[in-house]
Amino acid sequence: MSKETQNTTPPSEGRGAHVCLTPALLPLYNVEEYIVVIIDIFRATSSICYGIENGAEAIIPVSQVEECAAYREKGLDYLLAAERDGKVVDGFDFGNSPFSYTAEKVAGKTVVLTTTNGTHALHLSRSAKQIVIGSFLNLTALCNWLKNQHENVLLVCAGWKNNFNLEDTLFAGAVIEQLKIEGVVLDDAAIAANDLFQLGKDDINQYLKKTSHGERMKKLGIEEDITFCLQVDITTAIPVLQGERLVRLV
Amino acid sequence: MSKETQNTTPPSEGRGAHVCLTPALLPLYNVEEYIVVIIDIFRATSSICYGIENGAEAIIPVSQVEECAAYREKGLDYLLAAERDGKVVDGFDFGNSPFSYTAEKVAGKTVVLTTTNGTHALHLSRSAKQIVIGSFLNLTALCNWLKNQHENVLLVCAGWKNNFNLEDTLFAGAVIEQLKIEGVVLDDAAIAANDLFQLGKDDINQYLKKTSHGERMKKLGIEEDITFCLQVDITTAIPVLQGERLVRLV
Repeated sequence: MSKETQNTTPPSEGRGAHVCLTPALLPLYNVEEYIVVIIDIFRATSSICYGIENGAEAIIPVSQVEECAAYREKGLDYLLAAERDGKVVDGFDFGNSPFSYTAEKVAGKTVVLTTTNGTHALHLSRSAKQIVIGSFLNLTALCNWLKNQHENVLLVCAGWKNNFNLEDTLFAGAVIEQLKIEGVVLDDAAIAANDLFQLGKDDINQYLKKTSHGERMKKLGIEEDITFCLQVDITTAIPVLQGERLVRLV
Repeated sequence: MSKETQNTTPPSEGRGAHVCLTPALLPLYNVEEYIVVIIDIFRATSSICYGIENGAEAIIPVSQVEECAAYREKGLDYLLAAERDGKVVDGFDFGNSPFSYTAEKVAGKTVVLTTTNGTHALHLSRSAKQIVIGSFLNLTALCNWLKNQHENVLLVCAGWKNNFNLEDTLFAGAVIEQLKIEGVVLDDAAIAANDLFQLGKDDINQYLKKTSHGERMKKLGIEEDITFCLQVDITTAIPVLQGERLVRLV
């Protein structure tokens, strides 16, 4: 079977807005035909949006603590962010909490951020036309920009260890909610994500309480981070991948 | 990272009811710790349930038309089912329509059924404790049996070319609806599937009309098959995999 028949391709007429529910499904898409939005709501892409909004010069996502630590050798201007089990790793500047990404801390700095799921999704999306970062924080700014691009959009949920999670899917559904007005063609995952968003939108925090990740987060004592990450439209910056660096889209 | 941490495992206390949204995600599960239910609503698992209910001695799922044709050499008792683009392949006895699986046609016979997505899901689930077949046709009989097994349950959606589809997910949500009463532990995909079922349950046919597969089916002129496959509880047989054959569970 040819790659064309095997893979999901955008519609031949009109634009497609598709949702890739986990990075494990990315090989099923012809990524080069899309603008990709990376979604890792708790907490990587929320912290990235907040940091770029607050003047971080760049954020470099890496998957391993060791990769992050290696940047220490490259110069003193890097802030290193890494945590394990909800605690900042010894010798690092801060963890993954969005509260660490305030203007006071990150303005003018380059942050190296350790994030397993988010980095994995980014690497697998390398061949996309463009890769941007989404979170509830920059939802409407992101959607307005996407609408103006007249390109196919693939919303890539970073998920949890390559599997489905509800919070990333719900955010994908929130983006679809704004894009579908434009008459784009949705795939089944986009329809499902949008329907789930409809169910949860009145109180996303409450809706997500029943999920596995909500439980994990509660155990880690980072409920304040969750509440922060579910704030809608408190930022307007759109982080975009340039090389290995996420910077503010001009 | 060890296999245990990397993979989804059933909860240490209580039973788990998990949903694997596509066969591409099966490597993320420790399949051997579950009873697996294979789901391919349009139309393989619906036809299998109907055929076993109607007295077929066995149904052998294969993925390629050539594999199916090879059974012709093995004896005259095999009925061979294969279609391409909605038409019965020349030289075969019938296609994948459930209307071909009536008692008149299949009682006492062994049917070799060509089904790409369903066979793929079956093969990847080989190491499960047991593999059974689900469809709306045998929904409640299946759920009652599952409740009595006191085992972890993994609902495997065959999907479409390894990707997510809404009809298989909706059925998984219908099973979760009956199992969750028992106080089992759900994963995020099970929660999502069940929520989608809540949205669609009052008129599943109507709900699925907006999906990509509904469009495909309409083009193939098999809308009657769809309506048939969405009938709830018209059969009680539970097909189970024994070797390479699906037979009636005793």
